[in-house]
Amino acid sequence: MSPRDREDDPLTYREAGVDIAAGEKAVEFIKAHVRSTFRPEVVGDVGGFGGLFSLGKLGHRDPLLVASTDGVGTKSIIARLTGRYRTIGIDCVAMSVDDIASQGAEPLFFLDYVSVGKLVPETIDEIVAGIAEGCRQAGCALIGGEMSEHPDAMEPGEFDLVGFAVGVVERSEVLPRSVRPGDQIIGIASPGLRCNGYSLARRALLDRAGRSLDEPAWPAAQHSLGEELLRPSVIYAPSMLELRRHVDVRAFAHVTGGGIADNLLRVLPEHVEAVIKRGSWDEPRIFAEIQAAGSVTDREMEQVFNLGLGMLAVVPNGDVFRALDVVRSAGHEAWTVGEIRGGHGAARAVVA
Amino acid sequence: MSPRDREDDPLTYREAGVDIAAGEKAVEFIKAHVRSTFRPEVVGDVGGFGGLFSLGKLGHRDPLLVASTDGVGTKSIIARLTGRYRTIGIDCVAMSVDDIASQGAEPLFFLDYVSVGKLVPETIDEIVAGIAEGCRQAGCALIGGEMSEHPDAMEPGEFDLVGFAVGVVERSEVLPRSVRPGDQIIGIASPGLRCNGYSLARRALLDRAGRSLDEPAWPAAQHSLGEELLRPSVIYAPSMLELRRHVDVRAFAHVTGGGIADNLLRVLPEHVEAVIKRGSWDEPRIFAEIQAAGSVTDREMEQVFNLGLGMLAVVPNGDVFRALDVVRSAGHEAWTVGEIRGGHGAARAVVA
Repeated sequence: MSPRDREDDPLTYREAGVDIAAGEKAVEFIKAHVRSTFRPEVVGDVGGFGGLFSLGKLGHRDPLLVASTDGVGTKSIIARLTGRYRTIGIDCVAMSVDDIASQGAEPLFFLDYVSVGKLVPETIDEIVAGIAEGCRQAGCALIGGEMSEHPDAMEPGEFDLVGFAVGVVERSEVLPRSVRPGDQIIGIASPGLRCNGYSLARRALLDRAGRSLDEPAWPAAQHSLGEELLRPSVIYAPSMLELRRHVDVRAFAHVTGGGIADNLLRVLPEHVEAVIKRGSWDEPRIFAEIQAAGSVTDREMEQVFNLGLGMLAVVPNGDVFRALDVVRSAGHEAWTVGEIRGGHGAARAVVA
Repeated sequence: MSPRDREDDPLTYREAGVDIAAGEKAVEFIKAHVRSTFRPEVVGDVGGFGGLFSLGKLGHRDPLLVASTDGVGTKSIIARLTGRYRTIGIDCVAMSVDDIASQGAEPLFFLDYVSVGKLVPETIDEIVAGIAEGCRQAGCALIGGEMSEHPDAMEPGEFDLVGFAVGVVERSEVLPRSVRPGDQIIGIASPGLRCNGYSLARRALLDRAGRSLDEPAWPAAQHSLGEELLRPSVIYAPSMLELRRHVDVRAFAHVTGGGIADNLLRVLPEHVEAVIKRGSWDEPRIFAEIQAAGSVTDREMEQVFNLGLGMLAVVPNGDVFRALDVVRSAGHEAWTVGEIRGGHGAARAVVA
């Protein structure tokens, strides 16, 4: 109860913690960000009950829509603690669009949901600027979203950020398909954690090791631990579409919660086994820092973090070099990190 | 830090507050709920990176996709305080599908995002059962979702629930269209708050008036205040589609944050004025209880709550009786609550 909230005064929504005027100001701020993502299929403008997107001109024969939702998890806490909100929206877009691209889809449009303890228009402006940046990178239009003020449920500076992406793919082009023994596994670099494992990373680095987000990420590092942990997620979707234009990709696996093996397992048919070799790619230093700070076991690290591989592509043996070239030309480091072998019964995926 | 989390023990994700096993158990629980919503266009099953939905058989000439996202706001606090999680999912579906139905779209599919402080599989089971119930009511398939455990950011019992809905409409059938002077405004009943105004309602009833959720909703009521506040949102979408089959609907306005006038204003063209007459419909008692408990002004009540009208339909004067018949046949109370008049310049909407 605020000091001015007396028992006999009329209670207002604002005194109850919801500021409609702040919401309206935030909407004004974000309009330009939203419009910067529009593609020709977007119909109408900001402000309707729903966003409209025309399918008429895409020219698919038998189109499937592919949809996914995900949030940034407790990476939001790092943004809050450092007061840096400009890139967390990129993370939000990456999580959902790379999920749908993993099924072979071209991202079409995106919606965001931001909940906050207290609505500060300038913070919303930063967050949505990042979402718009992510949408432009992914080539999808930001056609809707929601801001919601949750007094009592969240602290004033707290926020959560959730995204929702829809894409389209020809039914005949849906992935995964026909993963088979002999196929090779290409790993595409992730320089940071993306949005996974932050609860463990925070506990290890901040609580156990008593590190501060302001200090260097590691001895002699030129950037802070906060900057390192806020590193925006790579959006792989455009490179994945490009890869498919040149190579017969059998499957993509987006490495999120569960780590490399669990996510690869999701795209494997029966009677095959995927073997990933640790040491075949460069693991970014932040993972070793977390492991050391929390005395985390190798097995736990492998189940929680991407360890430097944010996306896996399964390709025919003969396409490996072309695949590596395409991905590197798109600006990502990539390696052959494993292979598909024959197996018995249910599929298996191991990091060895 | 848990009692067993010693400085020299290996730190695990579970000790950091994220229980992957609980997540997997929850996924097993919800599979049957998810499948209960499937319609023929759904491709594949639970577990892919994205949900797949075939557009091929819908047979539209120039289809527009319509998408919306919304959450249940702090209605989640009422569910938490009463330990009743079975219907909040219906609310979540209602918010998004009725937004897209307001633009004339048929809901096709839905995705949900649940964040929790601590993942309790049995609670997730209840929440998703409600989401599936809502999807069946709305006729849309639940093709994806995400559960996210946020230790540190949320208390163990806290949760947030966000929904995303996608529908389709022929471009020539998009609403609003051609609202004009002489049109009548039909109000469709909402027996409760839907998902709006809960921060004010809680502050007024629980803090100001010191009411308990366990006591009768009002003197001699046969149900508790908690049950009253948890009353699930009506899902209007099927009735809205039915209404369009019989009546030349010019516009729908989903009454959410901002209240009756602000939401109606969103669908009005220039040079018209909408006048809603209070007293022309039955206002559910809960609104008077909130107003009295918080000494809330009439104007504030009108800007925050739906006051008993969850959906408005603008119809030609000659279609009023048919419209009322269709809506009532679909099981909702409905009234003529106002009309469209000529105006000058920007549109106006007033509750008088």
